[in-house]
Amino acid sequence: MHEAGVVGLLADLLAILLSAKIFGEMAERWGQPVVLGELLGGIFLGFGLIGFFRPEDPVLAILAEIGVILLLFETGINSDLSQLLKAGPVSLAVACVGVAVPFLLGYGLMAFLGYGRMQAVFIGAALTATSVGITARVLSDMGKLGSPEAQIVLGAAVIDDILGIIILSAVQGVASSGSLSWVSVMRTTLMAVIFLAAALWIGPRISSYLVKIVHRMRVRGILIVTAVCFAFAMALLAQALGTAMIVGAFTAGIILARTDKREDIDTTLKPISDIFVPIFFVMVGTKVQLGAYNPIIPANRAMLGLAAALILLAILGKVVSGWAVRGRGLNRLAIGVGMIPRGEVGLIFAQIGLAAGAITAPLYTAVVGMVAATTFISPPLLKKAFVRLERQGR
Amino acid sequence: MHEAGVVGLLADLLAILLSAKIFGEMAERWGQPVVLGELLGGIFLGFGLIGFFRPEDPVLAILAEIGVILLLFETGINSDLSQLLKAGPVSLAVACVGVAVPFLLGYGLMAFLGYGRMQAVFIGAALTATSVGITARVLSDMGKLGSPEAQIVLGAAVIDDILGIIILSAVQGVASSGSLSWVSVMRTTLMAVIFLAAALWIGPRISSYLVKIVHRMRVRGILIVTAVCFAFAMALLAQALGTAMIVGAFTAGIILARTDKREDIDTTLKPISDIFVPIFFVMVGTKVQLGAYNPIIPANRAMLGLAAALILLAILGKVVSGWAVRGRGLNRLAIGVGMIPRGEVGLIFAQIGLAAGAITAPLYTAVVGMVAATTFISPPLLKKAFVRLERQGR
Repeated sequence: MHEAGVVGLLADLLAILLSAKIFGEMAERWGQPVVLGELLGGIFLGFGLIGFFRPEDPVLAILAEIGVILLLFETGINSDLSQLLKAGPVSLAVACVGVAVPFLLGYGLMAFLGYGRMQAVFIGAALTATSVGITARVLSDMGKLGSPEAQIVLGAAVIDDILGIIILSAVQGVASSGSLSWVSVMRTTLMAVIFLAAALWIGPRISSYLVKIVHRMRVRGILIVTAVCFAFAMALLAQALGTAMIVGAFTAGIILARTDKREDIDTTLKPISDIFVPIFFVMVGTKVQLGAYNPIIPANRAMLGLAAALILLAILGKVVSGWAVRGRGLNRLAIGVGMIPRGEVGLIFAQIGLAAGAITAPLYTAVVGMVAATTFISPPLLKKAFVRLERQGR
Repeated sequence: MHEAGVVGLLADLLAILLSAKIFGEMAERWGQPVVLGELLGGIFLGFGLIGFFRPEDPVLAILAEIGVILLLFETGINSDLSQLLKAGPVSLAVACVGVAVPFLLGYGLMAFLGYGRMQAVFIGAALTATSVGITARVLSDMGKLGSPEAQIVLGAAVIDDILGIIILSAVQGVASSGSLSWVSVMRTTLMAVIFLAAALWIGPRISSYLVKIVHRMRVRGILIVTAVCFAFAMALLAQALGTAMIVGAFTAGIILARTDKREDIDTTLKPISDIFVPIFFVMVGTKVQLGAYNPIIPANRAMLGLAAALILLAILGKVVSGWAVRGRGLNRLAIGVGMIPRGEVGLIFAQIGLAAGAITAPLYTAVVGMVAATTFISPPLLKKAFVRLERQGR
């Protein structure tokens, strides 16, 4: 009945999954993280050489979102709540430094270059939010999710995501009314805290109840379907309370990790995320329009200079956050590097600014370049930092 | 970015998967096939009591199609090519009888009731095509895919699907030009034969090559992604050659079943189809508008009488096909019953007829009732027939 839609989608998925695996395998052979290959596969598809591939299909965007939700769910399942809580204060410090320093650096640069206050706020905000996806994926592929550094980074990235949404609600107020609405900022903050506290307090009760019901049911696939439904429900709940869906999915994973079905869920979830997760990263890659950064075109050069400066500040601002960790012999560089990747949230800031007329088109292109560069530079840096960790005997 | 679309889809999937499992579990406890529960879960969702569920979301229709493609792929993986080929002539006989008899019965009934030749052709055609999904699912859930009866039914249902598409191309010609185009019918037939022959001849060569490549690759999830891509590619190829996508997916499964990775593919495919396949059956259920068959409304009664007659002929015409099997001590009733369910193809016939003005709205509603009734009646009948088979000591 909907044959045309299915045919198109199957062809798109075929292009995405094959390029994910081909470029992923090449990355693996060159000692690089697989996710870097998937991003490059997306750039390749973005060239438009594969005639039947339609990157603008809205269904692909939705499947990509489901991919990142499943990735964070899987990351949660492989995380240790007690370790996350133990690392909590450190994660909070890392997240706060990693938000404040890039914001100030970005704001300062724009002010120094003579841009207006509004533009400086937007650029500063776009530099703040870490995208947890890349880091989670690299650490998961390396089997390093259990290390203390990984747990600090994950905790910080999740807090960062919440901070990002709080800043977003602030920036949205600034864009629409020209001034900061403290009420909306406070409400967003409160809701996020309520969501996390309630989820971690009520969650274990619900999950042990769920596991009991699942034990008693006989129908095929009940465990994986229940687990996925739980992740979806928590993502929807987080979204309804004004927090990011991926924070909800990650929390769902943490909760189920404490049940005796953890192993079974992890095993059966793997094939599903093997299909969905690459869709997210390849689609991120397709959005990078390399042509816009061609230095041969003179009109691009001023923007390229600005983009280079933003990239530098974006890396510097987050690497510094690793030094918010006190003593303990932890690898601060690995933590700081884990916070580098920026993602969708940075792009959302830039888009709101562009739509509100607060920032210009070249500024927007520079921000997109910063997001792309931090995304592509992080996997190899992260891998290096964690391999060095290993050589240190841990 | 596409948050609204994702939120809606996650909520829809939550409603679909939860009702699939709740009604599926109830069916299981009452000794009925799980798929019957999923269909009932769909009818329940169709009532509109779950406010956030949007059955008309086109993404759901696409995911449902992917569900039935994965189901037929899984069925193929659990089928035995040599047994299918051995059963080939018997399957062909069952398919031909199961197409000819229902067509003649439907045509005869309409002629007897004084309808015109065009209407009689459409109703006859709508009675022909077996929907392999229900039968494959029930047999798979019962672990009976390996029995000779199951292989005969599966072979016949696949041939039936091809016959259905040939009849469809004939009927489409009748609807548009008023006369039969032998050229288009011959072309469709030839293409289907070429596809099957080429797939079964070249397929094993490609699959052993694929397995070799997969063996050499190191990237995570390579086996399941390659297998799913192979299924999608074969479905697209079948579609491009004018055959049904599910025939392509089934063929892909048969081909991979002969590799030494059969077990691994089957294991990792299960969680994926656990998520996708119920979407198909629940969505079939949501399309049944029970209100249209309310006998208290006098205007419905003539249509209901006709629907009842069509249901009777639909069952009779297919059960008879079991008797196309000669001797050998096979359970003919089980084979005939396995051919009963009608599905999408019957509905497509009726829709083309309705759109072309060849059949009236009450006739269309009667056909939809026939499709729904055969779909709902088949799982319990099929289970009974195969349980009886078991009691006979096989």
